[in-house]
Amino acid sequence: MQKRKFWGWGYQDQVLSNEEDAAIESRIAAHFSLDEVPSLPIPLAEDINLPTPRVKIPQTLEKVLSKNHLERLNHTYGKSFPDLARAMLKQFPHPPDLVAFPNDQEDVVNLLDWADQNNIAVIPYGGGSSVCGGVETYVGDDYSGVISLDLRNLDQVLEIDKESRAARIQAGIFGPALEDELRKSDLTLRHFPQSFEHSTLGGWIATRSGGHFATLYTHIDDFVESTTMVTPTGVIESRRLPGSGAGPSPDRMVIGSEGILGVITEAWMRLQNRPIFRSSGSVEFDDYQKALNATRLISQSGLYPANCRLLDANEALFNGAGDGSKHLLILSFESADHELGTWLDRALEIASSAGGSYEKPQEKEPEAHRTGASGTWRNSFIRAPFNRDAAVRRGIIWDTFETSITWDHGFEFIESLKEKTRKAIHEISGREPNVTCRLTHTYPDGCAPYFSYTAYATPSTMLDVWKQIKTATNEMVVAEGGTITHHHAVGRDHRVKGYDVQIPSGFKDMLTAAKSSVDPRSIMNPGVLIDSGKGKIGHWMEN
Amino acid sequence: MQKRKFWGWGYQDQVLSNEEDAAIESRIAAHFSLDEVPSLPIPLAEDINLPTPRVKIPQTLEKVLSKNHLERLNHTYGKSFPDLARAMLKQFPHPPDLVAFPNDQEDVVNLLDWADQNNIAVIPYGGGSSVCGGVETYVGDDYSGVISLDLRNLDQVLEIDKESRAARIQAGIFGPALEDELRKSDLTLRHFPQSFEHSTLGGWIATRSGGHFATLYTHIDDFVESTTMVTPTGVIESRRLPGSGAGPSPDRMVIGSEGILGVITEAWMRLQNRPIFRSSGSVEFDDYQKALNATRLISQSGLYPANCRLLDANEALFNGAGDGSKHLLILSFESADHELGTWLDRALEIASSAGGSYEKPQEKEPEAHRTGASGTWRNSFIRAPFNRDAAVRRGIIWDTFETSITWDHGFEFIESLKEKTRKAIHEISGREPNVTCRLTHTYPDGCAPYFSYTAYATPSTMLDVWKQIKTATNEMVVAEGGTITHHHAVGRDHRVKGYDVQIPSGFKDMLTAAKSSVDPRSIMNPGVLIDSGKGKIGHWMEN
Repeated sequence: MQKRKFWGWGYQDQVLSNEEDAAIESRIAAHFSLDEVPSLPIPLAEDINLPTPRVKIPQTLEKVLSKNHLERLNHTYGKSFPDLARAMLKQFPHPPDLVAFPNDQEDVVNLLDWADQNNIAVIPYGGGSSVCGGVETYVGDDYSGVISLDLRNLDQVLEIDKESRAARIQAGIFGPALEDELRKSDLTLRHFPQSFEHSTLGGWIATRSGGHFATLYTHIDDFVESTTMVTPTGVIESRRLPGSGAGPSPDRMVIGSEGILGVITEAWMRLQNRPIFRSSGSVEFDDYQKALNATRLISQSGLYPANCRLLDANEALFNGAGDGSKHLLILSFESADHELGTWLDRALEIASSAGGSYEKPQEKEPEAHRTGASGTWRNSFIRAPFNRDAAVRRGIIWDTFETSITWDHGFEFIESLKEKTRKAIHEISGREPNVTCRLTHTYPDGCAPYFSYTAYATPSTMLDVWKQIKTATNEMVVAEGGTITHHHAVGRDHRVKGYDVQIPSGFKDMLTAAKSSVDPRSIMNPGVLIDSGKGKIGHWMEN
Repeated sequence: MQKRKFWGWGYQDQVLSNEEDAAIESRIAAHFSLDEVPSLPIPLAEDINLPTPRVKIPQTLEKVLSKNHLERLNHTYGKSFPDLARAMLKQFPHPPDLVAFPNDQEDVVNLLDWADQNNIAVIPYGGGSSVCGGVETYVGDDYSGVISLDLRNLDQVLEIDKESRAARIQAGIFGPALEDELRKSDLTLRHFPQSFEHSTLGGWIATRSGGHFATLYTHIDDFVESTTMVTPTGVIESRRLPGSGAGPSPDRMVIGSEGILGVITEAWMRLQNRPIFRSSGSVEFDDYQKALNATRLISQSGLYPANCRLLDANEALFNGAGDGSKHLLILSFESADHELGTWLDRALEIASSAGGSYEKPQEKEPEAHRTGASGTWRNSFIRAPFNRDAAVRRGIIWDTFETSITWDHGFEFIESLKEKTRKAIHEISGREPNVTCRLTHTYPDGCAPYFSYTAYATPSTMLDVWKQIKTATNEMVVAEGGTITHHHAVGRDHRVKGYDVQIPSGFKDMLTAAKSSVDPRSIMNPGVLIDSGKGKIGHWMEN
């Protein structure tokens, strides 16, 4: 098994070359007009001391619990900016006492039984790629210990139903392994979040992950046919159904539950045939409002492009997909059944009528998504998290936040958030930041803007600066009518002034009561989404 | 305001002509080889005595509570077979003590406060078209009274957002009034359940109603942007969002809650542009398995037909859309944006490759859905509930049940259920029934079979015979892996051996706990979906 970095994105052998690292340093120096850029060394595991585990491994669970130093480091944090910053600063005050690696569902049941009886908090862990404090192991003082429960050994595709295009899949499988396995049956889930390589099916379901499709099947939610979740009081298994009207959906309670109700162990997932036909194109706009309007009209056309991502001019520039003068709408259609010329032509016609311009001939090749503007964007998208590591070492904050909004407020919302974010960051950090926006997903009734920013800080100030910025953006997004998260989940970092404000209080009551019924001692991922059972844990964001 | 029949479907002025009534009688006589067919008289309201209301109208609620005799009759039952049978038999032992007609949300809040303080059960009532005991007012002996809460005065479209194609709509609006209002803005919800004329937005949301679109947007669920629900402990209002990943969806807890959590008062709904382009066709199959396979392939093609309904040969015959020798697949596409020739041609190509035959030219006219086989089917579909009234008078059971199943089990499931239903009804009623099947909705991973049957009984045996059949079909559907309901809701009638078996017990615990948190005295629609608070109510199905 490949070893993961405890201080950055990806596996230990996935490192930037010296040239790449230097290029980022130059970019930072240029952007913030710095003569010298400080740089933290990459920390070594053996240089970090961890507190002795407070919990003893019981004999019955010897095979599934570990106190391995590197595993404890690896499971202390996810991959948010402050996670990486704390790791880079060698701050590990609250690691898991133990890390659990169950081999099957029975192991999960036994682990929760043991944890429940011993007042041990359990943090479910898939790929650990959370960017919102979803897998952090700091749980306050109300527990006798905390374990991180890593699903990586539940990594099998258990059953494939080709006729219904569905498969029963264990929650711990990673994206690439899942697709490799499905490829053997000429099927694909086609759920490709940015974290694809480093995240798992269970994580996607628990966090309502957003994927490949920009329209229609935007979230993993849409691909879930049924779920199995182990809670401290038992296993909840829903029925495999293509559609149902029998009461509130049990799956919809599991989807997005972020580990506070139980551990998702497997799911039946709806699959796709592998696309054979593809048509792609990109459209340029001088005017952002027109670009947004074109995107809206395409989203409302019933054409359902697989990709429909609008990059603002800065975002395009930043990702090497433009010169910074034009907004760029990337469109692509894909199908396993039919040619898509008609679809693309109509979408381009709509974009053109709305003020866009494009050059013919557009790409209609199977590999179209890997070439041209789409391809440049795609590579940059996959590479981004690695580059971020290099920024963290310099104390520079590269971070993102994403939301959704109905079209009627779309333009003002995006413009206002960009401007307010710029101002807030300037005020907090003392320097002009770079704030860009793309639409990651679009709907007939609205869009999902995704904001990226680069903010100045130093290794010694970056955590504090980040916290101030995060609190500010949480507050702005929700105050202006957006959702605190479109597909990154809530975790712990999106609660303060964000989800805590957004969640309808009656629904919070229902969710809290539902949690109490299956997790009466509140051992499951305390502090995520809601406070319950053991009360407020005093997350560091609030201190 | 048009007066509703308390003993049948629709308004008092919507009656069958003598000829239509006689035709149904002849059909019954022929089918069951009867020399004479008994016929109950249509009951008169003044011939029915109701128990005196146990609840006094408080002065503060004088304007919104009524003890009107006809209203109490009208609100005692929904429109299931046993509802109509009991009405026709003049059996009204458990009417609502009072009927409430709130004029705004504030009235709803006040009504629930009063009911909660006085241990009065509240049955939310939209159009009263429930076919599963969802609005029945028998609540057992644990309450000091019961009111039916009719939303008909909350019937306004409050706000229209043309850009996002969405509207804020009060829950009590009926289908036709809603569409009339939206038409003024060139918009449409395009949710047309069979009950369209006699059901409301709030009812659709509370019951996860299935509508017009056979693929993609099959349930009202997909059109809900946000909801407002009044519970006994407060108002829960979700945020208008095109998509979100912030925790489990609050709306998904409201959708399908069938009145057990609170009263839905309004919702922001996603709308459509009015279709301009239509392409329709129908394909005949000699072999049902081939027909099913063709339907599957079209459902998995990414073409998303608006209509994709497969009628088995008997169902086609029964609805005047065939001679009973061929299975009929009705296809139609619609769009406000583009011509659909390419879409229909490809769907027909798939159907043809899978063994279907069709005659060219297919209909590609805007009114295509109103003519030809589609049109015949459409008229029969809308007319069916009125015909049923005539059957009830003769003690003949015309009823339906619907479910969903993944494709891998599709053929065996449908064949097995038809045969087992036939056998069970034969055994229970002593005569050969007619059992037919159509697919109302299809998915990439499965389909929604809808079974109709005609069973012999007499006015004096019909309730008992129906109960035996219902229990048998509940049990069969769930035992064979289907859902107890695809879009008719659970109510009270689908619980015994059905939903009670299907619901995962951990989810039942969560739902029960959630209900307790917002309805601590369990006044909301007791007996529906789950038992809680006041305990089992001893529904008549179980006695």
